[in-house]
Amino acid sequence: MANSTRQFGHIDGIQPGATFKDYSSMNAAGIHRQSQSGISGSGLEGADSIVVSGGYEDDQDLGDEIVYTGQGGRDSSGKQIADQELVRGNLALVKSQLEGLPVRVIRGAHKGNPFAPKSGYRYDGLYVVDSHWHEEGKSGFKIWRFRLVKLIDNTSKVASQSADDGDLGGSGNTTPTRKASQIQRIVRDTKIAKSLKKYYSYKCQVCGICLMAAGVPYAEAAHIKPLGAPHNGPDTIDNILCLCPNHHVMFDFGSFSINDDLSLIGIEGKLYVGDKHAINRDYLIFHRAFFYTKNN
Amino acid sequence: MANSTRQFGHIDGIQPGATFKDYSSMNAAGIHRQSQSGISGSGLEGADSIVVSGGYEDDQDLGDEIVYTGQGGRDSSGKQIADQELVRGNLALVKSQLEGLPVRVIRGAHKGNPFAPKSGYRYDGLYVVDSHWHEEGKSGFKIWRFRLVKLIDNTSKVASQSADDGDLGGSGNTTPTRKASQIQRIVRDTKIAKSLKKYYSYKCQVCGICLMAAGVPYAEAAHIKPLGAPHNGPDTIDNILCLCPNHHVMFDFGSFSINDDLSLIGIEGKLYVGDKHAINRDYLIFHRAFFYTKNN
Repeated sequence: MANSTRQFGHIDGIQPGATFKDYSSMNAAGIHRQSQSGISGSGLEGADSIVVSGGYEDDQDLGDEIVYTGQGGRDSSGKQIADQELVRGNLALVKSQLEGLPVRVIRGAHKGNPFAPKSGYRYDGLYVVDSHWHEEGKSGFKIWRFRLVKLIDNTSKVASQSADDGDLGGSGNTTPTRKASQIQRIVRDTKIAKSLKKYYSYKCQVCGICLMAAGVPYAEAAHIKPLGAPHNGPDTIDNILCLCPNHHVMFDFGSFSINDDLSLIGIEGKLYVGDKHAINRDYLIFHRAFFYTKNN
Repeated sequence: MANSTRQFGHIDGIQPGATFKDYSSMNAAGIHRQSQSGISGSGLEGADSIVVSGGYEDDQDLGDEIVYTGQGGRDSSGKQIADQELVRGNLALVKSQLEGLPVRVIRGAHKGNPFAPKSGYRYDGLYVVDSHWHEEGKSGFKIWRFRLVKLIDNTSKVASQSADDGDLGGSGNTTPTRKASQIQRIVRDTKIAKSLKKYYSYKCQVCGICLMAAGVPYAEAAHIKPLGAPHNGPDTIDNILCLCPNHHVMFDFGSFSINDDLSLIGIEGKLYVGDKHAINRDYLIFHRAFFYTKNN
């Protein structure tokens, strides 16, 4: 792996669609700086690129969306023989999610994948890590999963830029263009979610706070079992919580979860639930099993 | 104004580019349900449409971005003779910002505006309210300003939907498509902002909290004088704060601001600032003058 600064975003001169024979040529081009690992990155900086090769039995490639399995716990034949841990490449992808960093996605040839190239490897552009969780893989061992969503070029505003060096001495960009910013977090909302927030008068069900903004209350809706592939949680009242932004971030990242008796796990306290808001315990079970991470 | 449910998003059968002779024909088509006011909406529901007609001397139309002046305080000739208040249509636009609701933008003919139609009115698609603030208009009176940004159709995921009726009895959408969700909030980030967050170890400069997410700390960067038109604040360390999501929302919406001595206005406490982080007082003055809203 090259020792130069980690480069996030597009690599100059390499357009999406560019093909490569093998890892060695990708490494030389700087598009994926690993000799064999599928994830290039570190927990401190984030992941700059991944290779989707269908090597993991649990990967799901939907084109613009990818459910990517983390690394580790496999023997030399590729068979899962131990739990995966949230370290190295896996932690790098979590960091990318938290910072909204763009990840270069490269697809390797794989017979079963209609989105894969016929042979070799193809650079397929930039994705962002939308969410991550853990589950029991087909092998019975714990695996980490990452949902990546393709960035649309017109709106991604992602410039090719090197990793943050943490140096406050830099003057930054005094004449910023809109291209220089990245999206760190997107909060989505649905009609039924709006009605729940109204029901709770925009008070957080965890801490009771109601943020006021220009006299208008603000809260966010959190789906307990997430919407969209692969979880396909429903957009129904029994699957939604009304949370302040801080507790929304913590809940989505599994820093806390909720017992069936509504006591909280990971942080102190109990979820406040109004008489008219019936929460489906199945979704709480799901969140505890897939999203809650101990000791964080 | 029709008394039926307020409709947000596109109106069925009316494509962007559609033209209308006058307010009466727009009202009949349901594209702008007002007989003469430029803003259709309410503080409770949000604004479903606005007309950019160049009638206000302070409007700025940049095509994909619009700086729109609120309503009120003008005499029958259109001259500003009093301060504008954060009520009615103005409050509706704040609600739209908070909820991430799409606003239909209709442009009226105006000689000085290259983006306006030659005559009559033209529906120009959906925008979101990106921010709002108050300032002294050219007339010397206080006006409210709203920055609207055009939604890109591919990523807006905005379905045509009616206003939230607040009824928890509805079952919601049990098989949601991605089109059914709206973007409520987008958090952007820049390279220099990342270095500041690292400098503060991701602790909020207001409350000291550091959110942990899967063992990785999370914070957001807030530009004191916002990036982009019309403010064009710089992406430099002396214009950025490291905040938790809750205080970021409150700061952006002017629920609190910061005195030159770093004591907070609107909430108790004092901003924590590290030795190596010099904040430019000019940007604090700007935030107090344009964004801070008393009594919220």
